Amino acid sequence: MDTYRPSVLLDLDGTLVDSVFHHVVAWDAALRAGGYAVPTWRIHEAIGMGSDRLLPWLLGEHVGAADKLSDEHKRRFLEHADALHATPGALALVEDLRHREVPFVVATSASTEELQALLDALGTHDLPTADADSVEAAKPAPDLLLEAVAQIDRPIEHATMVGDSPWDAEAARMVGVRMVAVRCGGFGDRRLTDGGAATVVDDPRALVGRL
Amino acid sequence: MDTYRPSVLLDLDGTLVDSVFHHVVAWDAALRAGGYAVPTWRIHEAIGMGSDRLLPWLLGEHVGAADKLSDEHKRRFLEHADALHATPGALALVEDLRHREVPFVVATSASTEELQALLDALGTHDLPTADADSVEAAKPAPDLLLEAVAQIDRPIEHATMVGDSPWDAEAARMVGVRMVAVRCGGFGDRRLTDGGAATVVDDPRALVGRL
Repeated sequence: MDTYRPSVLLDLDGTLVDSVFHHVVAWDAALRAGGYAVPTWRIHEAIGMGSDRLLPWLLGEHVGAADKLSDEHKRRFLEHADALHATPGALALVEDLRHREVPFVVATSASTEELQALLDALGTHDLPTADADSVEAAKPAPDLLLEAVAQIDRPIEHATMVGDSPWDAEAARMVGVRMVAVRCGGFGDRRLTDGGAATVVDDPRALVGRL
Repeated sequence: MDTYRPSVLLDLDGTLVDSVFHHVVAWDAALRAGGYAVPTWRIHEAIGMGSDRLLPWLLGEHVGAADKLSDEHKRRFLEHADALHATPGALALVEDLRHREVPFVVATSASTEELQALLDALGTHDLPTADADSVEAAKPAPDLLLEAVAQIDRPIEHATMVGDSPWDAEAARMVGVRMVAVRCGGFGDRRLTDGGAATVVDDPRALVGRL
């Protein structure tokens, strides 16, 4: 008989760190500076994708100066990084997984530089991570989740993804991983369950002892 | 036979001006500075209420230093007011209503000071307004809508409210005014229709010629 050998893939932006609304404002400023007028609610819908996907999704396939827009977003986001905080229960969930010996990896679309700022906000750098700079394509492509799972010696079909965006749900669905969604990204239950989330809870605190 | 004599009540924050995400970040900073940790998705849910309602909703009925928190929010919001822009079609909708001689009033929970910054962003100050400082209780209390309707010599049951938040929908329902919602505040269709919105469109552009 096969034993159930759980593992957890944790999204960082919006899930462990309360950063989605700050990303929206940083992208809004970067896009306006680049001459693009995109309503913030549309920007919000795109948060959770890596920059390589977010910009074509918002502006169309052939975006001029995409690198410059990404750099400008990163600069503005990092400029206000001291406003970032952990989501409720984020550190408690990490400690809980360690305590119960459930292997986990933080799988994030963030660049290495943003990753450092997010871990500062979270309050620990002592975490296994797979970030956007370690794979070809960021979320919603499944590459990042496959990279994360490869770091864990557990069956992928026993893994659970914890994320805040429909893009996390899409990536999880592509690799057959169960998705548990948190509301902290502000995406709304309907979009999360439509995207494939098995369940929706407020924040990581609600998952302590349950994964 | 009664003639149909339409009029329009326009919300400002999030409806004519793309300001909701900026409000979230300003409240987040103000609340943290005041020692309160409220997740941004919860702050977002409260945007659209006046400060007098928003703070008790987020922090409980007996908030210490509520005026100080409100002032700090206002200071931080106004500090970044140059990042605000009109939503798509906002000015076109105003011009359209004028052209078709449909009377309208901008009904906003904003304080007089914020109102000026929002009208700067919108690109016109030449608008009839009812703001939070002109009534006892801000949205979702119906006072503001009643004040706005009083400025127009039209039957309230023929009026349409255009807003972006469930709080607009609640205020409209209380006075029996039809509510048309725009998505620009990022509230999600489900919450808007659950709140009582008759229909949901992307932004004011979709309403030009239709109210």
